[in-house]
Amino acid sequence: MRGAVIHAPGDVRFETLDDPKILHPTDAVIRTAVTCVCGSDLWPWRGLEPIGDAHPMGHEYVGFVEEVGSEVTAVKPGQFVVGSFATSDNTCANCRNGFPSNCLHREFMSTCQAEYVRIPNAQGTLVATDEVPDEELWPGLLAVSDVMGTGWWAADAAEVRPGSTAVVVGDGAVGLCAVIAARERGAERIIAMSRHASRQKLAREFGATDIVTERGAEGIARIKDLTGGIGADSVLECVGTAQAMRQALHSARPGGSVGFVGVPHDVSVDGPELFFSHVGLRGGPAPVRRYLPDLVERVVTGRIDPGKVFDLTLPLDQVAEGYRAMDERRAVKALLKP
Amino acid sequence: MRGAVIHAPGDVRFETLDDPKILHPTDAVIRTAVTCVCGSDLWPWRGLEPIGDAHPMGHEYVGFVEEVGSEVTAVKPGQFVVGSFATSDNTCANCRNGFPSNCLHREFMSTCQAEYVRIPNAQGTLVATDEVPDEELWPGLLAVSDVMGTGWWAADAAEVRPGSTAVVVGDGAVGLCAVIAARERGAERIIAMSRHASRQKLAREFGATDIVTERGAEGIARIKDLTGGIGADSVLECVGTAQAMRQALHSARPGGSVGFVGVPHDVSVDGPELFFSHVGLRGGPAPVRRYLPDLVERVVTGRIDPGKVFDLTLPLDQVAEGYRAMDERRAVKALLKP
Repeated sequence: MRGAVIHAPGDVRFETLDDPKILHPTDAVIRTAVTCVCGSDLWPWRGLEPIGDAHPMGHEYVGFVEEVGSEVTAVKPGQFVVGSFATSDNTCANCRNGFPSNCLHREFMSTCQAEYVRIPNAQGTLVATDEVPDEELWPGLLAVSDVMGTGWWAADAAEVRPGSTAVVVGDGAVGLCAVIAARERGAERIIAMSRHASRQKLAREFGATDIVTERGAEGIARIKDLTGGIGADSVLECVGTAQAMRQALHSARPGGSVGFVGVPHDVSVDGPELFFSHVGLRGGPAPVRRYLPDLVERVVTGRIDPGKVFDLTLPLDQVAEGYRAMDERRAVKALLKP
Repeated sequence: MRGAVIHAPGDVRFETLDDPKILHPTDAVIRTAVTCVCGSDLWPWRGLEPIGDAHPMGHEYVGFVEEVGSEVTAVKPGQFVVGSFATSDNTCANCRNGFPSNCLHREFMSTCQAEYVRIPNAQGTLVATDEVPDEELWPGLLAVSDVMGTGWWAADAAEVRPGSTAVVVGDGAVGLCAVIAARERGAERIIAMSRHASRQKLAREFGATDIVTERGAEGIARIKDLTGGIGADSVLECVGTAQAMRQALHSARPGGSVGFVGVPHDVSVDGPELFFSHVGLRGGPAPVRRYLPDLVERVVTGRIDPGKVFDLTLPLDQVAEGYRAMDERRAVKALLKP
């Protein structure tokens, strides 16, 4: 089969690879329906994360079950399945506590920009749809496996409640999905921070009530203006930089909550500052598996359409162009079709 | 009147001071029933916080209303009142959101180790008991004004729930009160970290089910041993040092919660570490006013007895000995009687 391999910053190639096989009785192998490029894939692409030896890429997937190991009974060949970028047995203490992305047997997916993918912990990880969904729903279901699940977690960790005010920091695919999540969870006012017209438009379509284009001290002042001078109940930090974290912490009202879901790079939080703000802070890799049944249902019934974050569709063999388009911000997120 | 004044590290004097007066129509003046020395008072005493000009000390109080300003109708002269170390109008947005210790008109109390005290924002700050309580209840009610309220906040911020496992880091008065709070909020298992026999005994009396004496890596390992290898649901950080915060963050299970209520000194939190732990973190000066009616009721009915944290009683004019005894760990907390 063929799949994407990163060799060096800016160098992703579509190559012939070994066909994935069942290695453990808890594995499944799926045929990829659609996959995509993630904002976090750009860190090694940009040379901001070490690459080491050349290795496959990709952690987002939906597909058709090809084969299952002897211990996998929850899904069967032919079914259409959605999973998570973090696999989980769904039975360990951390899974039972609601944190499958911290499963004691977790493996992070990393080979999904390919025609076939081996899924470890398949029994706990994969959720099959009732029937094979229309192809137009595939992008939405793909989004659920990562960016929509992560946006949902941002809203959950930031304790978005009916009637509350939410700020979304970051207008990438996760930030845009976080707008959907805030709306679905009942936020009355949703302030999206974005400087890009096309992303502002999508944010509004997803439920944003206000757009703030300022950043830094001006951005913080603008949020305070919009929130009675005190800040927002909930802030959804969907970037992962020190600047975004600062923006988030200073945009929350005293006693408000920040959910931070962008993988942090060079971020540290000052203890006294957090203390005197009374702001609650929780983040981490999204526990997507916990939300999957609910989010799949919302997509299949047409209640939400996070698939709109894909504004570029490419054949899988043009995966490198997907990286380039996202790096140059010509695309929010690139969908890849085998 | 007379009261305590700090002049330099290790130099607290009991001096004649101006009688407090009503300065604003929102003030009250109380006659102190009992007051005390706080662990946080030891920071300037030890020379670890700048003192500047000589100034009065003390932020814990219960007493009898002497006089009220024209806008104070909630309490009247002769009533016995309990307040908070942070005054609040109880009407601003932050108060309405449950964070009176972040009131837009907040003033931190700082003159309470004295015979009389001016209370700003008296209308929102003071809670009168139904009748003058027996003198034996005064220490418990005094504790409510700070250490018990702070222990309660630690349990609240750490999201202690019925049936959960809680770790309390710190065996000072706040830590001991945090044990009471964890028990009252239904924690099934309460692990107190303490190396001092008398404090261990009080912790057990207050509801601790386990005592851990180890610190650092050994302390963390011991907590993991006691919590199925993953850590506790809730950790109540009641110290404020970098070491205590590290202990707290590593004692929580993935997705658990840390409430940090010790005023942090030299503490910062690593973003990636917090991210991958899934631990939620919230702290700050305790919103004591929010809890006052409930906690006063628990003390008056004898349901809790946080007054037991006072293991030394002195006449107010011996306030300096209270500082010395606590600094030398001869006392957990010194009660002062005018």
